[in-house]
Amino acid sequence: MNIHGQATRTIWPAADGSGDVEVIDQTALPHRVEVARLTSLADAVRAISRMTVRGAPLIGATAAYGICLALREDPSDAALALAAAGLRASRPTAINLAWAVEAMLAAVSPLPPGERQAAAQAKAAQICDDDVEACRMIGEHGLGLITEAREKKAHGSAVNILTHCNAGWLATVDWGTALAPIYAAQACGIPVHVWVDETRPRNQGASLTAFELGQQGVAHTIIVDNAGGHLMQHGMVDLVIVGSDRTTRTGDVANKIGTYLKALAAFDNGVPFHVALPSSTIDWSLTDGVAQIPIEQRDPREVTQITGRTAEGVIATVDIAAPGSLAANYAFDVTPARLVTGLITERGLCAASEAGLLGLWPERISPDPGSPPTPPSPHSPR
Amino acid sequence: MNIHGQATRTIWPAADGSGDVEVIDQTALPHRVEVARLTSLADAVRAISRMTVRGAPLIGATAAYGICLALREDPSDAALALAAAGLRASRPTAINLAWAVEAMLAAVSPLPPGERQAAAQAKAAQICDDDVEACRMIGEHGLGLITEAREKKAHGSAVNILTHCNAGWLATVDWGTALAPIYAAQACGIPVHVWVDETRPRNQGASLTAFELGQQGVAHTIIVDNAGGHLMQHGMVDLVIVGSDRTTRTGDVANKIGTYLKALAAFDNGVPFHVALPSSTIDWSLTDGVAQIPIEQRDPREVTQITGRTAEGVIATVDIAAPGSLAANYAFDVTPARLVTGLITERGLCAASEAGLLGLWPERISPDPGSPPTPPSPHSPR
Repeated sequence: MNIHGQATRTIWPAADGSGDVEVIDQTALPHRVEVARLTSLADAVRAISRMTVRGAPLIGATAAYGICLALREDPSDAALALAAAGLRASRPTAINLAWAVEAMLAAVSPLPPGERQAAAQAKAAQICDDDVEACRMIGEHGLGLITEAREKKAHGSAVNILTHCNAGWLATVDWGTALAPIYAAQACGIPVHVWVDETRPRNQGASLTAFELGQQGVAHTIIVDNAGGHLMQHGMVDLVIVGSDRTTRTGDVANKIGTYLKALAAFDNGVPFHVALPSSTIDWSLTDGVAQIPIEQRDPREVTQITGRTAEGVIATVDIAAPGSLAANYAFDVTPARLVTGLITERGLCAASEAGLLGLWPERISPDPGSPPTPPSPHSPR
Repeated sequence: MNIHGQATRTIWPAADGSGDVEVIDQTALPHRVEVARLTSLADAVRAISRMTVRGAPLIGATAAYGICLALREDPSDAALALAAAGLRASRPTAINLAWAVEAMLAAVSPLPPGERQAAAQAKAAQICDDDVEACRMIGEHGLGLITEAREKKAHGSAVNILTHCNAGWLATVDWGTALAPIYAAQACGIPVHVWVDETRPRNQGASLTAFELGQQGVAHTIIVDNAGGHLMQHGMVDLVIVGSDRTTRTGDVANKIGTYLKALAAFDNGVPFHVALPSSTIDWSLTDGVAQIPIEQRDPREVTQITGRTAEGVIATVDIAAPGSLAANYAFDVTPARLVTGLITERGLCAASEAGLLGLWPERISPDPGSPPTPPSPHSPR
C-alpha cells in the first residue's frame, strides 16, 4: 500500500544484494517515516522484541528473514537451531513466529549447509508473497460483509466499521488482515468510515491504523479505547473487524489487549464482530484460548510514558502517571469464540468454531482410529 | 484526605475572608500541586468547563460557590438567574450541577438582595459539609462489600478492587465515592490493592486516582483501560467499584466513558460491579439512561494530545496521533442497571432498580391518585 503515494511493503531484501533486510521502523510512525536495516540475527530478534516490526503476520515474515541473516553468518545445524530458538522466544503470543520458523527449518534443514542461505532467501520471499496473497484473499472474502452492511443503510451513507489496534498492511507484508476488506470496499467505491481505537498502551491505532488509512485516503476518526461501547449503544457502528495474533482450533482469538471488551459490547448490542486472519495465525494444537494462550507482559513504561511531537515538532517522551505509582502491562487478551460472529480467512468465511475452521481446512481433521474418517463439514459462512 | 501528609479538601473559602474560593487545580496533577483562586462567577464556570475541578460532587460544590461569587458582584434576581443558567450549562452530564444550583436558588431567592450573599455562603458551606458526610457514609456502607470479598480469599491476601476514572476524594469535597470504602477498609487494616484504569482521554485514573491512593499509602497498580477484561478472566479482580455522574431512578448509571465496557466484563466473569454515589447524583426524572442522559462531547485535542513530564522535569504537551487524522471525544457512557450488582449510597446499599432506590428514598414515591399510597419497599441491600 501507499506511503506518500508510493506503493511499498513493510519488509524487503535490501536492493544492494547484500542479503541485509529492510523494514519500515514502526516505532517512528506516525511522527517520521524511517527505514531500519537488519544486518544480523540479533537485529531481527531485536526488531521483533522492541516492536520495530509488529503484527502477527509481519513478525512471522521478519523471523523468516532472521533465519536468512543467521545462515549468512553461519549455515551449520547448531547455528540454525540457535537462531530458531532465539526467534521463537522473541515474543510469546503470536503463533506466526513459530509457524514461520518451522516453515524455514523444513525448507533448509535437509540441505547441505552450503546451499542453505540461497534456499532460505527463496523461502522467506515466498512466505512474504504468500502472506500478501492471503491478505488479498481476506480482503475479497471480507468485502461481502461490508456490502451486506451497506445494504441495510440509507443510500449513500458510509458503512461504519470499528477496528482495534493495527491489523492493516503495516501489520502484514501488504494489504493487512482486518483492513484488507476495507481497502477492497474502497476500491469498489463503497463509502466506508473507520472508528479507530487508539489502542493503549502503544497506540498502534492512533499512530499506525490512522496513519495508513490517511495515506490511503480512507475516512476515519480516532477514538479512545473506552468509546466503542457507547458508539455501539447508539447505532454508530455497523461492523467490527479486528485481527488475531493466535487463534485456537475452536475459534478463540488472542488479539491486542482490549479486543475482548469490544467483543462483549458488540455482542450486547447485536453488532457483527468479525476476526480476519491468515491461517498462519491458527494454532491447531489449542482448544481453550483463555487457559492456553500465553499472554505477553511488557515493560510497564509502555503504560506510564508516551512519545509524541511537541508544538515545535520535536519528538519527546513524557511521563504521564503519578510519580511513584506502579503499572502493569498485559499486551493481549483472549476473546472466546462465543462472542465472535465469524472468521475471515484466505479460504473464505467460517464460524468461529472447530467445525467452522475444519470446514475450510479439512486436512486438519485428525483421523480417529476407532471410527471411519469423518468427511469435512461443508464450507459454512455465517 | 492527605496531600504530602497534610489533610485537605478540594474546595474551600479563601482564608482572607474576601469571599474568594480556592480549589486544587486538578489539571496540574499529578505533576504539580497547585491551588487556583476563583474570584468571579466567570472563574467558577471556567473552572468547571475546563476541568480545573471535576467529579460530579465537586462540580456541584463549585457551582454552589459560583452562586456566592455571582451574588458578591450583583445580588439582584436578574443576576441570580443568569448565574444559575451559566453554571447549569457549564457541563451537561453530571446532574449534581443542576441539583446544587437548585438548592442554592431555593436558599437565597426568597431573601431580599441584601441578605443573599451571607445566606449563600452558609448554604454552600453546608452543601460541602453534607457531601463530606454523604461520602463518609458511602465508605461505611461499602466497607461491608470489601469485608465480604476478603472472607472468600486466602488469609492475608489483598482484596483486588478495580476502579475506573477518579471517584476518590479529588472528585468530591473529601473522602470520595468509589474510593471511600477503600479508605474505610484501609483504616480497618484490611489489605486492599486497587487496579487503577488510566482512563483515557484525560487520564484521571493515572493522574488523580493513582496520585491520591499514593498519597494515602494504598497499594495500587495502573493499567490501561483495555486490561480489565483480561484481569477479570483470570480471577485477578474481586470487586469493581466506580462512581456516577448521573443515575436514573431505575438504576442506570452515566459515568466516565468506558465504564460500560468494564461492567460488561464484570458481568461476563461473575465479578461484583458496584456503583458508589451520593443521592445528589440521582436524577429522579429519568427512567432510561441510554436514551435520556445527555453525553458531553469535548475537544478532540483531549484525545490527540497529552501532557506529561519530560526526563528533565519539564511539563510538555505532545501530539500522539497521526497528523491530519480527526478524533471524536465522548466523555461519558451509560451502564444499564441490568449490569450493576448494586448501588452504594449514603443511606445504604440497594439494588440498581427503581424498587431498590425507592426502598431507601421512600419520599420519592410518586403518589398515584387512582390507588391507595404504596408503602415503601423495605431497605433491601443485595
